[in-house]
Amino acid sequence: MSDAQPLVGLIMGSKSDWETMRHCADTLEALGIPFEARVVSAHRTPDLLFTYASQADSRGIQVIIAGAGGSAHLPGMAAAKTVLPVLGVPVPSRTLDGLDSLLSIVQMPKGIPVGTLALGKAGAINAALLAAGILGLQRPEFRDALMNYRRKQTEEVLAHPDPRVQT
Amino acid sequence: MSDAQPLVGLIMGSKSDWETMRHCADTLEALGIPFEARVVSAHRTPDLLFTYASQADSRGIQVIIAGAGGSAHLPGMAAAKTVLPVLGVPVPSRTLDGLDSLLSIVQMPKGIPVGTLALGKAGAINAALLAAGILGLQRPEFRDALMNYRRKQTEEVLAHPDPRVQT
Amino acid sequence: MSDAQPLVGLIMGSKSDWETMRHCADTLEALGIPFEARVVSAHRTPDLLFTYASQADSRGIQVIIAGAGGSAHLPGMAAAKTVLPVLGVPVPSRTLDGLDSLLSIVQMPKGIPVGTLALGKAGAINAALLAAGILGLQRPEFRDALMNYRRKQTEEVLAHPDPRVQT
Amino acid sequence: MSDAQPLVGLIMGSKSDWETMRHCADTLEALGIPFEARVVSAHRTPDLLFTYASQADSRGIQVIIAGAGGSAHLPGMAAAKTVLPVLGVPVPSRTLDGLDSLLSIVQMPKGIPVGTLALGKAGAINAALLAAGILGLQRPEFRDALMNYRRKQTEEVLAHPDPRVQT
Amino acid sequence: MSDAQPLVGLIMGSKSDWETMRHCADTLEALGIPFEARVVSAHRTPDLLFTYASQADSRGIQVIIAGAGGSAHLPGMAAAKTVLPVLGVPVPSRTLDGLDSLLSIVQMPKGIPVGTLALGKAGAINAALLAAGILGLQRPEFRDALMNYRRKQTEEVLAHPDPRVQT
Amino acid sequence: MSDAQPLVGLIMGSKSDWETMRHCADTLEALGIPFEARVVSAHRTPDLLFTYASQADSRGIQVIIAGAGGSAHLPGMAAAKTVLPVLGVPVPSRTLDGLDSLLSIVQMPKGIPVGTLALGKAGAINAALLAAGILGLQRPEFRDALMNYRRKQTEEVLAHPDPRVQT
Amino acid sequence: MSDAQPLVGLIMGSKSDWETMRHCADTLEALGIPFEARVVSAHRTPDLLFTYASQADSRGIQVIIAGAGGSAHLPGMAAAKTVLPVLGVPVPSRTLDGLDSLLSIVQMPKGIPVGTLALGKAGAINAALLAAGILGLQRPEFRDALMNYRRKQTEEVLAHPDPRVQT
Amino acid sequence: MSDAQPLVGLIMGSKSDWETMRHCADTLEALGIPFEARVVSAHRTPDLLFTYASQADSRGIQVIIAGAGGSAHLPGMAAAKTVLPVLGVPVPSRTLDGLDSLLSIVQMPKGIPVGTLALGKAGAINAALLAAGILGLQRPEFRDALMNYRRKQTEEVLAHPDPRVQT
Repeated sequence: MSDAQPLVGLIMGSKSDWETMRHCADTLEALGIPFEARVVSAHRTPDLLFTYASQADSRGIQVIIAGAGGSAHLPGMAAAKTVLPVLGVPVPSRTLDGLDSLLSIVQMPKGIPVGTLALGKAGAINAALLAAGILGLQRPEFRDALMNYRRKQTEEVLAHPDPRVQT
Repeated sequence: MSDAQPLVGLIMGSKSDWETMRHCADTLEALGIPFEARVVSAHRTPDLLFTYASQADSRGIQVIIAGAGGSAHLPGMAAAKTVLPVLGVPVPSRTLDGLDSLLSIVQMPKGIPVGTLALGKAGAINAALLAAGILGLQRPEFRDALMNYRRKQTEEVLAHPDPRVQT
Repeated sequence: MSDAQPLVGLIMGSKSDWETMRHCADTLEALGIPFEARVVSAHRTPDLLFTYASQADSRGIQVIIAGAGGSAHLPGMAAAKTVLPVLGVPVPSRTLDGLDSLLSIVQMPKGIPVGTLALGKAGAINAALLAAGILGLQRPEFRDALMNYRRKQTEEVLAHPDPRVQT
Repeated sequence: MSDAQPLVGLIMGSKSDWETMRHCADTLEALGIPFEARVVSAHRTPDLLFTYASQADSRGIQVIIAGAGGSAHLPGMAAAKTVLPVLGVPVPSRTLDGLDSLLSIVQMPKGIPVGTLALGKAGAINAALLAAGILGLQRPEFRDALMNYRRKQTEEVLAHPDPRVQT
Repeated sequence: MSDAQPLVGLIMGSKSDWETMRHCADTLEALGIPFEARVVSAHRTPDLLFTYASQADSRGIQVIIAGAGGSAHLPGMAAAKTVLPVLGVPVPSRTLDGLDSLLSIVQMPKGIPVGTLALGKAGAINAALLAAGILGLQRPEFRDALMNYRRKQTEEVLAHPDPRVQT
Repeated sequence: MSDAQPLVGLIMGSKSDWETMRHCADTLEALGIPFEARVVSAHRTPDLLFTYASQADSRGIQVIIAGAGGSAHLPGMAAAKTVLPVLGVPVPSRTLDGLDSLLSIVQMPKGIPVGTLALGKAGAINAALLAAGILGLQRPEFRDALMNYRRKQTEEVLAHPDPRVQT
Repeated sequence: MSDAQPLVGLIMGSKSDWETMRHCADTLEALGIPFEARVVSAHRTPDLLFTYASQADSRGIQVIIAGAGGSAHLPGMAAAKTVLPVLGVPVPSRTLDGLDSLLSIVQMPKGIPVGTLALGKAGAINAALLAAGILGLQRPEFRDALMNYRRKQTEEVLAHPDPRVQT
Repeated sequence: MSDAQPLVGLIMGSKSDWETMRHCADTLEALGIPFEARVVSAHRTPDLLFTYASQADSRGIQVIIAGAGGSAHLPGMAAAKTVLPVLGVPVPSRTLDGLDSLLSIVQMPKGIPVGTLALGKAGAINAALLAAGILGLQRPEFRDALMNYRRKQTEEVLAHPDPRVQT
């Protein structure tokens, strides 16, 4: 995480979500996007969440990425307190394969949107990429970083170690 | 709704939830439990929700009943702002049969409980009955009302209009 | 478990449910709430269940917490035999991720409520916390214990070992 | 329903289940199997259920068919109080398409079996046919009735009104 | 397995199902019920299945227990070829937690019933117990064996190694 | 249906499936593919199914399309009796939205494949199109008919009556 | 739809999706955001989709909103051909309550993100609001429009026609 | 993989899918069907997919088998670009047990069919067998190979190591 003004606020509902959300942090770093990461629990630190979400805008944050599991209220409640784009990452729960996390985040009522990504690591990485796409509308350097990232991944798809698979 | 000090705070996430939650209100009335009913949206009126939930206790409310659908955050966020018992009623959603409402309410992380009832009308009625059970621990009149209510329903179960069914 | 009059009756459907429900016992102990714990199977010891549930009230129990898995009938059948508040904890099943446990407990028909908590350990802990909230309406010491418990957990949320996560 | 000693005890959890379970009654009648039908709610009339299930055997009942919906505890609790074969019919619930009814009935723990049929009308009819198969092991007249029933249905399958479908 | 005339035909769809179905065999043995066990695949040995199911009756079999997983057609197809009672045991599949096995077995169309038990080991044991209940209608020795089995399991429920759990 | 040698055998498990499967028949006709349609129930006419499936090949049928609902065993059992390609169409069931139909058809064990299409009308139409693709490998006229069909549908996609939607 | 350069490209997989997606169009209009709407089917007009998605950027589009149902590939395939932010709206399907639409859109593999909204009308409206939040990062007029929209909806939440509900 | 003209094009969405799809390759080899295998990602290499699918026909490929997981768009998008038969193999996903993979592949809209097989290894093997059935309509050697394969598997079903299971 650079010293630059953070543009992405990466929050998560509990310490254990970091196992998933650090892939988001890694991807933001790879793209050169300044961010800050915090544990903010909708349920156990509701006041902190309200303060964080309502001040993010004036603090220069442009996109909020929120990861949470189970009855995952963090992304939706953050979205309720800001007009910044909020992206939600459902963290897989122990019991229901993350179906609870996913539905709690994506099924927001009309009026307050959360742009929801896939469950788990893939969603954490993609939240960073979608943030890059959003920020890249104004900042060509993030757009270029995103295009490079995607070019590289296209090349990686094609290689395969098994000789029975053509490349 | 009587003029007495309301003991139950009945809140719901949108106007359309009243179709379900009025069965809760009817049951509270039948049991003689004073209550107040309000629309409080976790997403569209988050500040009102925080004010409501954090002041309910000092205003004399003893049990909060919260009904909501879809990404139903109302019961859990109310519970985050009070130590009063919070009961949640999942209101069926249009698309996923209410599975989203149910999981969003019941799968709360450790630390903040919501006592969740069944989906829809049955849950709305049962939330009132459970509130009566809770309040009845201190107030014999509610306990008696609850026992009468249940005695009556036992009698009603047994009657059947079809002569092929014995009674 | 202290020698005091138990206020919470903690029952579970089989020995193996203790792995989950002991977290409930631990939390009740941490809050200083006297309780008793028993294995009572709705299916294999139905008479014991009826005796237990119908006598709990006169024995001084104020809240029943029942944990069970699969076709989990214990909470609902206990609730059928008492007007005390009954809280249900769905214990995850081996095959269906606990969806069967959850639906069997939460989808009670109108007339007999079970306040249902989350699947597994989180639900077991939260059942104890909700019992504390209910008992705290009459007994300030439980209410204070609950407030302390929640204050402590708020503090714990904020700490994080990874330097990339702010605290 | 003939005056003969009833061999099948057909019970259901609420009046509204009759809409489904009358198809079971019709099929039993068509097969000439004497039965009795009663509303017995596991939750609202638990004592009646216990009396019914524990006395069914000595009253000459040989098979119990129990239909219920939602948190459907009736078949399993009947099975807990008798060694007679108990067949369960999941009645579709309003909200979850009957998945709750099905899982509540079929996922019984080891020790107490319920032979579960399909959701709704098909299951109600099939419960009668399975009862006929069971009773037919001792009573050739029921076995013959079942074989006739099945022969007739085979013939009916083959006819089709649309000329594009061969018969 | 004794030398006596087998009364239960225990069939399963593949070798790997034996891991589940041997609990059924163990329980039948414990109850003293003579049985035979065979691998019969609806899909890979359809003719064998038809021969087996259509001749079971004349060979003296009284109950067929069929275990299968995935698109589990074995119980239903056996039921299509006999009027004997057929009990189905859904064997958990690798990918969908056995939901496919369960629905394939239980959702039989009207006309051909399969009495379905729980997923996996519990269902395998319960199929044996339900067979005992069915056979016990004619043979008091199986009925007695079943009553002893259940008496013993009632006693076992009550014991618990943890001193915090009362017995 | 022309007088030509039928190349597709279209079977369905019950009369009511025709409501879905006639869309398959219509599409086959539109493509000029000769077919025959029959009601063949895996459960109620198992012998007919075995005869049909085992003789289809020698009768000149090249592709079997089987539609069924609930515990849908027809496609899989047909596939067990032939090496012809079998395509399965899950017909939506009344209660579980067709999830039972879909899983019963698609989750075939290794060894016996069923190429499964979408639930309901879309699947019925697509089964005809996939049959055309298969038959078109040898018969250019079906391949041409398929290409024409797809060209036409591409054109139809683009038109829209609402002036706010561009075309 | 104004004559201004469209900033949002609103695409949908079939004509019938317009019933859902017109709520997105209405909301974009209410916010004063210029957009264009087109039917573009991933499956039936794949080349058009590739052309549309790969040229959207150079044509001045800044956000793509894609609505589709069933095996909904439109949002993901559009995202594969652009670095613009792509928002996906799952349109409810006839048979599986839209679970197929939702999972097909949200569970994108790492590398290509789709910001997914709720099923149906709520999701369609929220896609427009999220687009406004994204565009508002650069264009204060959209940000202001969004803030006004949300202020108004907060006021509307509080009103209720039933006198039993406080306002 | 022989040097002969490949008749089956086996493609998969990512390297990790090979763990599942190599069972398809093994089965094709066992049947003597020439094939080629490639990693082609719908999302990360969309142009390659379009080129591959649109040229497969002229390159002599007769059947495309596509395996993918999560939001699995590969089979459907390949089918959109060819009139060759396309078979889809849902690869189990990490979080949702593969329900996402299955629904994304099987629920194709009318117009573009994908013949979908079971989740995982069984589906991968069965895709090869179904391809053999399709190719065998023209080439007797594949038909013979398929019949031998099935004869052998019938024999293998019957053997069982446990003496309690008859053979």
